[in-house]
Amino acid sequence: MKTIDVCLSPELIHLYDVSDKTVVVVDILRATSCMVTAFAHGVESIVPIADEEECERMKLQGYVISGERNGQKIPGFDKGNSPFEYMDEHINGLKIAFTTTNGTQAIEKSKGAKQILIGSFLNLSAISRYLLMSDDNILIVCAGWKGKINLEDSLFAGALVDKLRKHIEPDCDAPLVAQELYLAAKDDMLKFLSASSHVKRLNRLNIHKDISFCLTPDQYHVIPSLKKGELRLL
Amino acid sequence: MKTIDVCLSPELIHLYDVSDKTVVVVDILRATSCMVTAFAHGVESIVPIADEEECERMKLQGYVISGERNGQKIPGFDKGNSPFEYMDEHINGLKIAFTTTNGTQAIEKSKGAKQILIGSFLNLSAISRYLLMSDDNILIVCAGWKGKINLEDSLFAGALVDKLRKHIEPDCDAPLVAQELYLAAKDDMLKFLSASSHVKRLNRLNIHKDISFCLTPDQYHVIPSLKKGELRLL
Repeated sequence: MKTIDVCLSPELIHLYDVSDKTVVVVDILRATSCMVTAFAHGVESIVPIADEEECERMKLQGYVISGERNGQKIPGFDKGNSPFEYMDEHINGLKIAFTTTNGTQAIEKSKGAKQILIGSFLNLSAISRYLLMSDDNILIVCAGWKGKINLEDSLFAGALVDKLRKHIEPDCDAPLVAQELYLAAKDDMLKFLSASSHVKRLNRLNIHKDISFCLTPDQYHVIPSLKKGELRLL
Repeated sequence: MKTIDVCLSPELIHLYDVSDKTVVVVDILRATSCMVTAFAHGVESIVPIADEEECERMKLQGYVISGERNGQKIPGFDKGNSPFEYMDEHINGLKIAFTTTNGTQAIEKSKGAKQILIGSFLNLSAISRYLLMSDDNILIVCAGWKGKINLEDSLFAGALVDKLRKHIEPDCDAPLVAQELYLAAKDDMLKFLSASSHVKRLNRLNIHKDISFCLTPDQYHVIPSLKKGELRLL
């Protein structure tokens, strides 16, 4: 039986051998939710870039540059980190270079994996169906907040473990922790998350609508996948 | 209001400033449960030592040497890692040098904290009462399993957060994750833990009695504390 494990913080990724695994990177608020939304609206590709200045230089190569630090759009960048910025018709066919506080760092640290997919509640069932069919062992990598674990990414990991658990063996205790957390929260995730440090931070930025949207399962059926440093549809 | 945080793995401790904090180190199965049991039965001091050979050399200085690796007693050592080895009358007044797979490493990594205490379910209320009276911010450091998080240490962290939450503010999301886990498990922790990877490992070693004992709250009222590299009663 293939296995599933959860890396609750990118700072723990050295403990896992990712070379034979499909890694699902998740940053619910809001990097991977934005990426999934963008692909659902026709974006051609997204280059995730950990470094802010490197991302900014991509503008010269014709990329739309998207950037967020500490929950806010980087001044001078074309777009920020709200999924609602990635829904309009002009998004179709764009190539985006994207840098965020946690999400793009988590993707960077996952390099070396057999396959890297982008997960969010928005494409939860699509990801789950794909993983059920694949033969690979699975590692969910939570972006967290500056190395610390966070509630929303742990909840997503738990939701995905809960969907797969009948068919896939947990490899350690982290999937069990995440699943229990999800079971406690699933009836009202928004209320559950209201105690979270990151949600408190984001509430100060007035993005209730973003938070609510990012917790909504199965809005889209796209699965972004990293190939040669670039995200494209699987 | 003072704060409480939880470091779910010693591999994340660099993310926390421990210099102004009281750190509670926990390794439920079984290092810190053994240490608490030993002090409750009159041990004079315990020197926690991360390195196995360094611990073995303490024999020459008159220490009783206790050691465990991968759940089993180290060959040639006086004692292993079962709390029942630290209950007999001959333990009174002994000086012990102690090395374990995870617990003593977690103590080592916590050095630099304002104060280091040893926690377990066995002295849960004693620790909780002390922390309520102290003015320091609190960090619970879970020993985990070779860097990965584990259920039993996370459960203890949750139990302690649950006891303190009305009076002490969680500093981040990890205390919330731990507390939810504890609330889901508290009615039958033994059953809850039966799915845990570490308990499965230990069950193969036939130590059901140890596991059950280590999950029993408030057997003892002692609080071991680290001073100059040595654990003594607070």
